[in-house]
Amino acid sequence: MKKSLIALAVLAASGAAMAQSSVTLYGVLDTGLTYSKGKESVYGLTHVGGNTNSRLGFRGVEDLGNGLKATFNLEAGMGVDDGTDYFTGNGMAFRRTSTVGLAGNFGEVRLGRMLTSSYLAVSRYDAFGDTGIGASRAWGNGYAPRAENAISYTSPSFNGFKFGGEYGFGEQKKARTSRYIGVGATYDNGPLSLGVGFDRMNDVAFAELDDSVTPAVVEKWSDDLTTWQLGGAYNFGVAKLLGFYKQTKYKEVGANDSAKFKTFGLGVTAPVGAAGELRVAYNHYRVSADGGKTPKANQLSAGYVHNLSKRTALYGTYAYLKNKKDANMGLQLNGAMSLGKDAAGNQLLNLSNSGVQHGLQLGIRHAF
Amino acid sequence: MKKSLIALAVLAASGAAMAQSSVTLYGVLDTGLTYSKGKESVYGLTHVGGNTNSRLGFRGVEDLGNGLKATFNLEAGMGVDDGTDYFTGNGMAFRRTSTVGLAGNFGEVRLGRMLTSSYLAVSRYDAFGDTGIGASRAWGNGYAPRAENAISYTSPSFNGFKFGGEYGFGEQKKARTSRYIGVGATYDNGPLSLGVGFDRMNDVAFAELDDSVTPAVVEKWSDDLTTWQLGGAYNFGVAKLLGFYKQTKYKEVGANDSAKFKTFGLGVTAPVGAAGELRVAYNHYRVSADGGKTPKANQLSAGYVHNLSKRTALYGTYAYLKNKKDANMGLQLNGAMSLGKDAAGNQLLNLSNSGVQHGLQLGIRHAF
Amino acid sequence: MKKSLIALAVLAASGAAMAQSSVTLYGVLDTGLTYSKGKESVYGLTHVGGNTNSRLGFRGVEDLGNGLKATFNLEAGMGVDDGTDYFTGNGMAFRRTSTVGLAGNFGEVRLGRMLTSSYLAVSRYDAFGDTGIGASRAWGNGYAPRAENAISYTSPSFNGFKFGGEYGFGEQKKARTSRYIGVGATYDNGPLSLGVGFDRMNDVAFAELDDSVTPAVVEKWSDDLTTWQLGGAYNFGVAKLLGFYKQTKYKEVGANDSAKFKTFGLGVTAPVGAAGELRVAYNHYRVSADGGKTPKANQLSAGYVHNLSKRTALYGTYAYLKNKKDANMGLQLNGAMSLGKDAAGNQLLNLSNSGVQHGLQLGIRHAF
Repeated sequence: MKKSLIALAVLAASGAAMAQSSVTLYGVLDTGLTYSKGKESVYGLTHVGGNTNSRLGFRGVEDLGNGLKATFNLEAGMGVDDGTDYFTGNGMAFRRTSTVGLAGNFGEVRLGRMLTSSYLAVSRYDAFGDTGIGASRAWGNGYAPRAENAISYTSPSFNGFKFGGEYGFGEQKKARTSRYIGVGATYDNGPLSLGVGFDRMNDVAFAELDDSVTPAVVEKWSDDLTTWQLGGAYNFGVAKLLGFYKQTKYKEVGANDSAKFKTFGLGVTAPVGAAGELRVAYNHYRVSADGGKTPKANQLSAGYVHNLSKRTALYGTYAYLKNKKDANMGLQLNGAMSLGKDAAGNQLLNLSNSGVQHGLQLGIRHAF
Repeated sequence: MKKSLIALAVLAASGAAMAQSSVTLYGVLDTGLTYSKGKESVYGLTHVGGNTNSRLGFRGVEDLGNGLKATFNLEAGMGVDDGTDYFTGNGMAFRRTSTVGLAGNFGEVRLGRMLTSSYLAVSRYDAFGDTGIGASRAWGNGYAPRAENAISYTSPSFNGFKFGGEYGFGEQKKARTSRYIGVGATYDNGPLSLGVGFDRMNDVAFAELDDSVTPAVVEKWSDDLTTWQLGGAYNFGVAKLLGFYKQTKYKEVGANDSAKFKTFGLGVTAPVGAAGELRVAYNHYRVSADGGKTPKANQLSAGYVHNLSKRTALYGTYAYLKNKKDANMGLQLNGAMSLGKDAAGNQLLNLSNSGVQHGLQLGIRHAF
Repeated sequence: MKKSLIALAVLAASGAAMAQSSVTLYGVLDTGLTYSKGKESVYGLTHVGGNTNSRLGFRGVEDLGNGLKATFNLEAGMGVDDGTDYFTGNGMAFRRTSTVGLAGNFGEVRLGRMLTSSYLAVSRYDAFGDTGIGASRAWGNGYAPRAENAISYTSPSFNGFKFGGEYGFGEQKKARTSRYIGVGATYDNGPLSLGVGFDRMNDVAFAELDDSVTPAVVEKWSDDLTTWQLGGAYNFGVAKLLGFYKQTKYKEVGANDSAKFKTFGLGVTAPVGAAGELRVAYNHYRVSADGGKTPKANQLSAGYVHNLSKRTALYGTYAYLKNKKDANMGLQLNGAMSLGKDAAGNQLLNLSNSGVQHGLQLGIRHAF
């Protein structure tokens, strides 16, 4: 196939202004086989991603002089298995990232929809990086890793120390609905890495099928979510040790009910030869509700990634989750397949109480 | 970050044919803070755009020889605040522009969905170019700036004089539903610019909440819209003076009801130094319905644009609208935020009768 | 317009890995006038495409060494007439193709959504290539040319002989729902070309308006579809002769009802000068249901394609369909316009029984 160099013209919206440009088209396609077994079993093709969540994006930087830069990023999430956007369930929207901003010595200010500083500061201590069946449940359950209608600030690095935060407008007459505020800070120095984050989300909507009554009803309510999380890692060379703690308090709006969801996560990643990486993680989950039982669950995940090149890898992940004390948690199937979803959008197999779930993913990740 | 030149291959659909190509990827990201106050107030991030409506597009031209060219343009409108398409409210569709055509000495014929010749001929005399909170209401109220399922013709320039028109098929058995026909003509000669347009849209659907009865009901009807508009500008160098008049007649289909919506617009734009531009506009709106009152409103808008480069600008706009005689109009928030919308898709704050609305936008526009 | 060469950076998702890339942006825009006349008539702009179905895509190949390659393809289908995706009716999703895979001496394995080997092996003997108003009805009626959530294998060529197959997961607890399995084989040697295919689709949902009762009701059911198809072509130089036979058996799930839809297709394509191509096709359709009548229809299609360049063509197609014995079939308008659609998504004009339908398309196809 003969190829021709392409000349992409850069044209400002006015049709008159023009300048040299740098727009980057990039993407990740990640899919493979997902098998999961609880009370029932299901198998199919991975929807969101098993190693790196699939995406298609455009980004660019313009040098404005005097150390000032304009930046933008538009990134959609597509499920390779069926070609749809895994946020909209339909056409591609830039729901992973949609930002325009200014960067300089002062750091970077961005407007739009983006991963929050708090999430970024601590989710990196999940050995499976909140991706695939091995990921921790810590980043689900109504906790949103992204803010929208938001202003974001990220500081420059002060000897390895950085911080940032987001404020997301509710854009309602009743202004607190959907409002987000959060901050995160990180410290990176050679082998040592630390992170801490705080989030508050107002009036997050929840829904749950209550089939203890006949006919079954869908209960709807909204909660204020307050999250504290911190984590750290140390790279010993032969292996990297990771750990984090996260707790989210759910306070029902207009009621006295509240509950806490806590996650203790531990992980190890280790290079295997020049092209391989081993990952092991343990997660302990604990729910403490007002005057009730304390549902708990434990999860063990193990995975191996084999890089065929810098852009392409094959991987396999196995995960095992065991519920205790009336807990009814499942692995993060992340919309992998067509089963019912819980209120947080996680897909759950029907587990019996105190049940067990196994999950397996074998896949390919290709970046361009 | 090392970069590699990319070779984009050009391949006809058959898989066999191939030729040199010119495809342009371009876009505008425009967002910022929007604040608006009527009876209530709302603030948040600008959805569609404050200075230039946000977009992502692909376009290209192929030289076919003998002065003939094939052209195409695909352009989607995305809200940077949340990453969704502001036409579909969901995934990106090419609802701003979707055309393929042939251009030559005879002008250009295009097929698809495009801004109409009538709208283009006159909306350029809105000092805020139908964008942001300072824009005139003239281009809303059910008046559609685009035709779809349409054939468009644009003439070449005859000493500064150009004309064009569109015919949009209804594509219904009852063929007049959604049908569009319109023409526009422009004259541009040095500092002088003139434009005139005519549109007819058949069977445009409307809906309105009637809460004067209990329970409140949604009334639905459809109107034939007939629009006459004309405008002009003169560039004195230190400043450019703009003015236009527009009237749309709404005739209810299958009934004797009709009404007219008239806009008188005046504006001034003036360069400020090498990088700035000042914009001021006054709009007078007047509704004349059969045998009823004559609701009126006045709007004053002022804005400043500061160009950081040819591609990037910061801007601020203030607008003020005052209703008279039972009028209940609002500023064009253009789907900026999550409040209720009127039948034309404009977002309205709850104004008291004879009410007042203030609006403020501070934002950034970045083109690539 | 000055143009700047663009440097597209290649960046793996991790932000660290990077390598030389080859991503291709490509597309086809095809639209024009469609006119169709049955009992009633409709005219408008072609939605999906008259010569080549419209599309926008990204694809790439990475050389992994040792003869191994990583491949990907993302391709959306857009209607140029209104800028929407003709699969979703809304935003662009990669519903034409969404695959990532590995290719080598062993052939190619792909994961995602793709045209099936069976469809590709035989649909190429439709002189109108399943595109536009001249196309055979063989590829509709609930028969899906694509598998999703699927694994695809395509063999290398063994002296002109190739084969392939797809398995599409149902991804339901009741695992056979939506499951697909199919195989296809082709032989290409100089002027001779042969193809054969088999498909089985489980639990395909159907719906039909039954207006023989008052009030009219929508009947819903699901069928298992089993398809056998084969075809061949011989290129005599002055003309190419094409023929195929296809039969799909519809077996109602949980019932004893079944029916067969059979198509006999014959076609001729012939070059006209250096830039033209003539196409003629005859299709005979026959439905054989349990103990009932045998509805039949005949279709004659004729078209001419004139290439303005390797990338751009003008074309015209005329098609005529005549129903016999209670048949109520229509031409494949392929969602061309806003009339009602049948259960298979084909648009049908209201034909009287034993009715006749005429169709005409005049259009432009531009590829980039």
